[in-house]
Amino acid sequence: MVLRLSLQRCLVHPVSALRRHMILTRPASTTPHSTPPGLLRYSPWSKEFLGSLKTRIFLQSAFYAVGIVTAAGLVDSYLFASRTELEEPVLHYASPQGTKLAIEELRATFPRANAVDTDADTLRTYGFSENSYHPASPHSVVVRPTCTSDVVKIVNISRKYRIPITPYSGATSLEGHTSGYPSGSICLDMSGMDQILQINEADSDLVCQSGARWEDINATLKEKGIPLFFPLDPGPGATIGGMIGTGCSGTNAVRYGTARAEWFLNLTAVLPNGEVIKTRRRARKSAAGFDTTKLFIGAEGTLGIVTEVTLRLTPVIPTKVAMAQFPDVEHAVSAVQEILNTPYGPHIQCVELLDDHMMEAINTAGLVDHPYPVEDTLFFKIQGDPTSIKSTSKAVQDIVKKHGSSRFEFASTDQEAEDLWQNRKYALMSTMAANPGTRCWTTDVCVPVSRLPQLVFETKKDLADSGIQSTIVGHVGDGNFHALILFRDDSELQGVSDAVHRLVHRAVALEGTCTGEHGVGVGKKEYLTDELGEGTVELMRVIKRAIDPLNLMNPGKLYPERRKPKAEEFNRPSA
Amino acid sequence: MVLRLSLQRCLVHPVSALRRHMILTRPASTTPHSTPPGLLRYSPWSKEFLGSLKTRIFLQSAFYAVGIVTAAGLVDSYLFASRTELEEPVLHYASPQGTKLAIEELRATFPRANAVDTDADTLRTYGFSENSYHPASPHSVVVRPTCTSDVVKIVNISRKYRIPITPYSGATSLEGHTSGYPSGSICLDMSGMDQILQINEADSDLVCQSGARWEDINATLKEKGIPLFFPLDPGPGATIGGMIGTGCSGTNAVRYGTARAEWFLNLTAVLPNGEVIKTRRRARKSAAGFDTTKLFIGAEGTLGIVTEVTLRLTPVIPTKVAMAQFPDVEHAVSAVQEILNTPYGPHIQCVELLDDHMMEAINTAGLVDHPYPVEDTLFFKIQGDPTSIKSTSKAVQDIVKKHGSSRFEFASTDQEAEDLWQNRKYALMSTMAANPGTRCWTTDVCVPVSRLPQLVFETKKDLADSGIQSTIVGHVGDGNFHALILFRDDSELQGVSDAVHRLVHRAVALEGTCTGEHGVGVGKKEYLTDELGEGTVELMRVIKRAIDPLNLMNPGKLYPERRKPKAEEFNRPSA
Repeated sequence: MVLRLSLQRCLVHPVSALRRHMILTRPASTTPHSTPPGLLRYSPWSKEFLGSLKTRIFLQSAFYAVGIVTAAGLVDSYLFASRTELEEPVLHYASPQGTKLAIEELRATFPRANAVDTDADTLRTYGFSENSYHPASPHSVVVRPTCTSDVVKIVNISRKYRIPITPYSGATSLEGHTSGYPSGSICLDMSGMDQILQINEADSDLVCQSGARWEDINATLKEKGIPLFFPLDPGPGATIGGMIGTGCSGTNAVRYGTARAEWFLNLTAVLPNGEVIKTRRRARKSAAGFDTTKLFIGAEGTLGIVTEVTLRLTPVIPTKVAMAQFPDVEHAVSAVQEILNTPYGPHIQCVELLDDHMMEAINTAGLVDHPYPVEDTLFFKIQGDPTSIKSTSKAVQDIVKKHGSSRFEFASTDQEAEDLWQNRKYALMSTMAANPGTRCWTTDVCVPVSRLPQLVFETKKDLADSGIQSTIVGHVGDGNFHALILFRDDSELQGVSDAVHRLVHRAVALEGTCTGEHGVGVGKKEYLTDELGEGTVELMRVIKRAIDPLNLMNPGKLYPERRKPKAEEFNRPSA
Repeated sequence: MVLRLSLQRCLVHPVSALRRHMILTRPASTTPHSTPPGLLRYSPWSKEFLGSLKTRIFLQSAFYAVGIVTAAGLVDSYLFASRTELEEPVLHYASPQGTKLAIEELRATFPRANAVDTDADTLRTYGFSENSYHPASPHSVVVRPTCTSDVVKIVNISRKYRIPITPYSGATSLEGHTSGYPSGSICLDMSGMDQILQINEADSDLVCQSGARWEDINATLKEKGIPLFFPLDPGPGATIGGMIGTGCSGTNAVRYGTARAEWFLNLTAVLPNGEVIKTRRRARKSAAGFDTTKLFIGAEGTLGIVTEVTLRLTPVIPTKVAMAQFPDVEHAVSAVQEILNTPYGPHIQCVELLDDHMMEAINTAGLVDHPYPVEDTLFFKIQGDPTSIKSTSKAVQDIVKKHGSSRFEFASTDQEAEDLWQNRKYALMSTMAANPGTRCWTTDVCVPVSRLPQLVFETKKDLADSGIQSTIVGHVGDGNFHALILFRDDSELQGVSDAVHRLVHRAVALEGTCTGEHGVGVGKKEYLTDELGEGTVELMRVIKRAIDPLNLMNPGKLYPERRKPKAEEFNRPSA
């Protein structure tokens, strides 16, 4: 070592770092132990440096290396820190080969028949929806779990191979929520997880798997003679998981509110990291922090997979169905506003608006014994004990008359009441049955109730001016309305899409929302920023990124793409 | 260049990188263009290297730099990635000097009188609460904004100087929500922001600032002759902002639900980054994504400052007050369960339980004309049109009799009804007036209704065994109950605290929650993990960190400190 030192030593003199540094040799010394004076002997740039050329180069290199790393770190933290937090996560989804391996692992994990399905027709059926005309792709594989731990395994495989995962159950959604991801996706078919696990009649609650249908739950309670029911009633066939995902409501929302109220006491959810959480316990209320239950309601499967749910139930109350015709929507809406603000308001379980076109469609579809008057019509469901129904009916009758109603009649029998209500619930089917050979684009918006007449009037005029045929039904008690727009072939699709676009902008301009109950999915993404503002949408994205950093949970749905970077960026931790 | 090369060239020979690399000199060459053979001439460690010593050092530096960055990245991502995400953010709150500068800037920003207050008594009064016995500190400064843009300025100053900010308004909270932060804090006194900005009677909604009191809002509506009210009724003096922060409820929750239902349509909030967002528009319902309104409900001011709110109102409905005595709590609760599950259930606006001690306290406090029977008692508020009240009262009377009630009587006049209800609302005052010289620790828990009798029985026994005096009142329709525990001096405080601890654990073991409506604050933090599980609490922390990375919004409240790292860490993006 001493010998090598003496033979190979050379010196480096720093004139100025980086640009002009020089390395000087000095004559080989025969007295390697002679000590140069001062601290300079430790500097690898000094003539007096004690070490070998090798050491000198190593130390200089290390110094520069540390300098480069530090400089890069400073540049990164001061210039790019907020940007890296802000931009969409860089996606490295699985290649086709990776997807193949994932499917093999899924097959090995779930060997039972039909648990893992790659039939081409199935992948297409699950990836597309007959109810929507938004861009879609087939899934790569459909997997059918039966319990929470199955879902954990699937989520872990999705994460291992970086394959997006899309939950699926009732398949009644209208905005492309369950469509496949273009680079491949695992479709998590929850419809087999439909068991009722526990009924606590004394506490008016029930625990079920998330694939259970709301209609089946209510039928089971009725069969068992339990005088309770679950009041959220979206489209026929919808499941609890999907109802949570879209933040559903339905005709009963006037009396019972929506999925965003307090009907879901506790959720079991599998988070993107594979962890299983329960959002609450079984108490009817809690003030223990902000409610993570609510986080999953309306998240459209983008924050985790809900597998089990504790539902709150409510007593079954006798109802009576009535119908009133009006000269126009404005008169109908003003009658509803007055009724709901009286002490009789809480007895109104539902109040539905069906426009003249919808009434005509019901008649034409041949679903009724005698035709209804073709006028703008309100359907009421009045609830209460017999004396309350009587007094409420009287009050309703007086008020609708005052607001210009020409007719008011009760369903004469329970069967007639049920038929009448079925006609409303199956509005889509009636509309299509009355117009054979057509297809239908269904959309919904919601505005403050007082704005509904203007919205309906302008929308009907717009559709008529554009030569587009449609029916309109609305949960008029909430200001929520649906347009069922008919068309015959793809050549008309653009015109329909444009009309929907105008309808949404009209609703948002009236202090309303792009969707009252159908959700965002693919179809309404573009409107969210206009409706809520960039700050609110970015808050949603910040939460999404924090919970699902790999963006594996139903990507491409709900969150609009960022429009342009803003000067004052969200979440940048500087003054 | 060529000359310097020829004079100074020396060569490096890599025997093995890092540990044994060697640098060899070779004789100065007069033929600098002679080309060494093979690829070694490109290696800066090789004898054959073609470039200058400067180039050699540069290339080695770059190599080491890349190595360091890669190694650091690997270490970071594999060992520390989840930890750095998981641990509490490193806090660098302002020094006393920084706080002084911040106060100067606040004074310069808000020159009006009383806007910025540093009076020592005020700081202490605002930092501590007479209602709680949890650790607290005085604030550094109290600031009184009048509008949203004032709040933005204060939040920006808090962030600039890194001073925690604690919102404050009605000061009725019981769990230390508004206490000061030990290293100094800005107390944001919202009580001056109490204006009603807009009343939309036709849509049954109202826009106000968040410092408005619910009682003032209802009084204003009554004065104006508008037959609507806001039904959330927590403690007297509570403000809308505080009611949102704690996720409040009250006696009306049986009929109208809690703050977590759909009474808050839209919030204006100032986020920790100073951005102002609106969470929704004014439509009564929306399915446009998960509801960021709900994020602030129960967040106790830890995610942002709510400045304006759109409230949903509901019609005023006539009520009648009744009272029934029972042999014990179990009989009282079973009667309530039966009543609520009949078709008459929706007419029960409130049903409150007052135990024998509470009834005795009311008598002793001398707030009533004639003494009440000292028995476990239910107070009912029955609502509806006159015929419904009549039929419901009959049904209630029959059911309570069936469940062993000895007495059932209506308040004979409106004044008596109001007095009766006031006795319930002012339970704390009655309890203290009946026991002069005592102090009171108020706590609440909530369990499924069927578990309430067991909880009350065991708690009363525990308190009696410990020689502790208390009264009990409960929102029995929700399973929520309050213990008002009396003590005389600090020497008894530990015993009271221990009894509260046992009560909370008892409630959680019965599928309940550590708080039904008072919130977490400082006092209930330690129970959250037991109640919800580490995964759920960590989900709450992940959201808090994403929205408030500097932890400036009411730190020290709500989120429990982490107990111990878990093997499977949250949010680690690996397979």
